[in-house]
Amino acid sequence: MATVAFVGAGPGAADLITVRGARWLARADVVLADALADPALREHAPDADWIDVGKRGYGPATEQAVIHALLLRYAARCACVVRLKGGDPSVFGRLEEELAVVRAAGHETVVVPGVTAALAAAADAQRPLTRRGRGRSVALTTAMTREHALCAGRHADSEVFYMAGTQLPALARQLAAAGWPATTPLSVVSRAGWPDAIHTQHTLATLAQACVLHRGRPTVVIVGAAASALAPAHAGSAAAWQAASASA
Amino acid sequence: MATVAFVGAGPGAADLITVRGARWLARADVVLADALADPALREHAPDADWIDVGKRGYGPATEQAVIHALLLRYAARCACVVRLKGGDPSVFGRLEEELAVVRAAGHETVVVPGVTAALAAAADAQRPLTRRGRGRSVALTTAMTREHALCAGRHADSEVFYMAGTQLPALARQLAAAGWPATTPLSVVSRAGWPDAIHTQHTLATLAQACVLHRGRPTVVIVGAAASALAPAHAGSAAAWQAASASA
Repeated sequence: MATVAFVGAGPGAADLITVRGARWLARADVVLADALADPALREHAPDADWIDVGKRGYGPATEQAVIHALLLRYAARCACVVRLKGGDPSVFGRLEEELAVVRAAGHETVVVPGVTAALAAAADAQRPLTRRGRGRSVALTTAMTREHALCAGRHADSEVFYMAGTQLPALARQLAAAGWPATTPLSVVSRAGWPDAIHTQHTLATLAQACVLHRGRPTVVIVGAAASALAPAHAGSAAAWQAASASA
Repeated sequence: MATVAFVGAGPGAADLITVRGARWLARADVVLADALADPALREHAPDADWIDVGKRGYGPATEQAVIHALLLRYAARCACVVRLKGGDPSVFGRLEEELAVVRAAGHETVVVPGVTAALAAAADAQRPLTRRGRGRSVALTTAMTREHALCAGRHADSEVFYMAGTQLPALARQLAAAGWPATTPLSVVSRAGWPDAIHTQHTLATLAQACVLHRGRPTVVIVGAAASALAPAHAGSAAAWQAASASA
């Protein structure tokens, strides 16, 4: 029986994997990697067989079954299989199906969390996902249904949509229909976490303009309080300064 | 002018920091660290002054002002200040105020994302936060208002509450009032990401029983679809096996 570790690679750039994730790569006999993973991640697994199971060239349903078959094949042969998934394995990663298949075959499973794209996008935009008092909840959402229809709602103070890059005009219409005002701020971040990340700022009324800039790049759209500008600075009272001086 | 890097340490255990975060620690002149950060993280910053700014012994308002004052003091003296924050800096991290203060003083700011507790908890529970078809959105929420009142709602298919460990019976009442049925599944995970993490499984009706097990430990409560058991395994069709065999 093998150990199969489902490891979050982070949003792309190799240095956004966790130290624990890198250590699992180092002990892997084989790595089944998503297409989004940075090739530089291979440096962490110099002795492993590296198999690209990115979703290109298959229909989505067949493709997932192929991944299941490969997981079972390599788990039967090896002591340690790493299934390297983009972002965090627990968020929009099809983890449920893969865990169930591997466990049903009697293998041990481990999940190593990773930085999901929403967090990397907020970091690049330097606009936090939660705001004290005015942004107490943030929802991570896929705008696409299983049938590939776009369906956006209004769940929380802020909403983060994954993989909406090609459909920004439709997303804007859906958000308006869900009750978000035309003046709602939006941050659009593509290639979050990479050196060439782009962050642009919009309102719901002007979201469609983001299409050209972000075309062809993995995109995250942040809607609501989390997309608003930072509140003005309050450095603190004189008393606080004195307390800091006395204790430092 | 200094560079101030706001780095997510992850949920606690030192090896859940990102490789990028560890590299920022290595170049820091001074590190201002939250109390939750693992002392083992200091190995990444052997030459830095390490200052514990954990929120103990101050009122919350004063304390944040002291952190602001310390940030400005060290940014004025050093080339590189790391502000090491538990979890991800953009999620329930008071990042907005600190970014605003540092930027207003003219310093360069960088944000390095981290693994937020919800992701680590889902990894420990091996129950993904999103489920294909039945769990399309997940909301990260603090159940506490600014006035320290408990206030839980129903925002998404799944809801994750931070820091609710001491108030599980009150949380259960609030969730019921917000419309979650008594049979709703809940995962409770404390010390997520650590070797001694505990995961227990409940329904809304039995949530209060989790109090004893998780008492005194940082706790995350996952409500709804994300807390349900895994769907049964489908290894894939014979055709998918054959396709995998042919291509491997």
